[in-house]
Amino acid sequence: MKRMHGGDPTAFVESRGFAPLDFSANISPLGVPEGVRKAIADAAPESDRYPDPNCRALCAAVAAREGVPEDRVLCGGGAADLIWRSALALKPKRALLAAPCFSEYEAALKAVECEILFHPLAEPFVLTERILPEIDRRPDLLILCNPNNPTGRTIEPELLRRIVRRCEENAVRLMVDECFLDFLDEPERHTLKALLESCSHLLILRAFTKFFGMAGVRLGYALCADRAFLDAVDGSGPPWSVSVPAQAAGLAALRERDYPERLRSLIRTERPRLKKELETLGLKVIPGEANFLLFFCAAPLEEALRNRGILIRSCTDFRGLNENWYRAAVRAPEDNARLAAALREILT
Amino acid sequence: MKRMHGGDPTAFVESRGFAPLDFSANISPLGVPEGVRKAIADAAPESDRYPDPNCRALCAAVAAREGVPEDRVLCGGGAADLIWRSALALKPKRALLAAPCFSEYEAALKAVECEILFHPLAEPFVLTERILPEIDRRPDLLILCNPNNPTGRTIEPELLRRIVRRCEENAVRLMVDECFLDFLDEPERHTLKALLESCSHLLILRAFTKFFGMAGVRLGYALCADRAFLDAVDGSGPPWSVSVPAQAAGLAALRERDYPERLRSLIRTERPRLKKELETLGLKVIPGEANFLLFFCAAPLEEALRNRGILIRSCTDFRGLNENWYRAAVRAPEDNARLAAALREILT
Repeated sequence: MKRMHGGDPTAFVESRGFAPLDFSANISPLGVPEGVRKAIADAAPESDRYPDPNCRALCAAVAAREGVPEDRVLCGGGAADLIWRSALALKPKRALLAAPCFSEYEAALKAVECEILFHPLAEPFVLTERILPEIDRRPDLLILCNPNNPTGRTIEPELLRRIVRRCEENAVRLMVDECFLDFLDEPERHTLKALLESCSHLLILRAFTKFFGMAGVRLGYALCADRAFLDAVDGSGPPWSVSVPAQAAGLAALRERDYPERLRSLIRTERPRLKKELETLGLKVIPGEANFLLFFCAAPLEEALRNRGILIRSCTDFRGLNENWYRAAVRAPEDNARLAAALREILT
Repeated sequence: MKRMHGGDPTAFVESRGFAPLDFSANISPLGVPEGVRKAIADAAPESDRYPDPNCRALCAAVAAREGVPEDRVLCGGGAADLIWRSALALKPKRALLAAPCFSEYEAALKAVECEILFHPLAEPFVLTERILPEIDRRPDLLILCNPNNPTGRTIEPELLRRIVRRCEENAVRLMVDECFLDFLDEPERHTLKALLESCSHLLILRAFTKFFGMAGVRLGYALCADRAFLDAVDGSGPPWSVSVPAQAAGLAALRERDYPERLRSLIRTERPRLKKELETLGLKVIPGEANFLLFFCAAPLEEALRNRGILIRSCTDFRGLNENWYRAAVRAPEDNARLAAALREILT
């Protein structure tokens, strides 16, 4: 049995013999930053040694970038690795998840036999204060993704702060996945970093994966003021999950000067353009705020696009969505134009 | 709290400002093979994509090398990753481990609240048929390491075959960790590969880490004829644990022609030489058969060696050993001579 995830570009290359135009993965369209490429290549000769299990240099660099004390940082082999470790460290009896949301939360929680309460988000998929009484029911864990995957919607900052306080009052562990936060127009308005020190139940997840175009090297980190909990998460998996190339790549990514603003500016321009193109074709598009768009189409699209060399993400397997929902990454102008043209061909 | 593992070369570099001569990690002394270095560097620009979660090309190459069908192979982010996933997939109630053995088995099993029965190995740490009645008590899982870490001792092949059959009869899941097997003088005499098809309870663990000098990229694999179990192991962790550089490195390692024999020949010559040197100093050395030696010394060595720029592995934290036991990797002739000279200085 093969694991399916996203549009499966590997299977595409195998069967067609050329690389698809991949809108199924929400990755920076600018590719691996030059400095990161060089760091990976330079790390090759040192890859005979075990990685530093404590990622000391990288944790220090992350702490400096985030403006938090060093012992608030735990690095992992991608945010997904930290999600699985957290589930194993906590072994929650009951957890609360929004639906739809990123599927790894459910997979990791099910592996530790956790009962999952789903909080359904109705269109247009915005979290409301209806979540508050559910926190009062004291699940062991609440996981929120901000901006949410696959909807791209953020949680209104004031509501989010109320959620954090309510979790703190009820001793509910709160994991907020900010993996796509850097793609927002105003990330600083949305991050919960400022609440870290006063809210020991809060754990923030971040990834290098998407924003720095390095999904292939596996690197993410968690921020939390409860060091004992971070240690438990750390101890709930093997000691060397962040490879030598990943640690080098992370350090190099944090030294990138122009890349973040170039990327944010590209997304800022292209997201509304792509959204408008899709709407012109009569598609219902959720007003996502990150580097991808969720849209509804009654006609089947996946196969028809694949036949044109293009992959998008069918949302069939997202709880609360169905086969009529699709997610497409925002890419470079010419790529987005190709997607729009292919859709026009299919739909008209 | 920092995780300690081995001699902690990172802390050494931080405090002393130069790289130690590291005998604490059991890694090939020949470094990263040239082809593997190149593969890691070449994979850098492709590291913006998610790795293939099914490692299709790599599984096919491993299957071809091992002479097993492709669906018998599961790749992971190092053998340790597969140990943790297996523990989570099985959630054994009771497991049987030899003592001493590699510490990650115990760590992973404890994380899923497994009761562990320890089978103590008395000096010279050879497994005997005393293990057989313990299998008849039907633990859910037995893990053996062959050759064993940190002793370097193999299990007598005929006994090992009896163990496999006994596990099969008692429906005991058997994990045999062959991560150091390639370092043996006659690996083919010891591998259980030939029993794979007839013993569905057998899972063999292999790593690229040590033999191909690529501990930094995290890559290992499991061989098992029970595909449903492999799928469960695969599903007990995030989908992308084998990074893009690791998949490329693994494919390149399997193409190496001279490296394996050069390495085996070095170990074959240097292991007995280092053993003799240590014995000349009055140390009791366990006759290890892999690329490391376990020895006993009543005097404290770790700090004194560290002060001479050399790291060895204190075995204090191995169950069944104590602070008088040390493990040292077999390295290149000049390195081994430096270790022997430093020990001579300390002990005389």
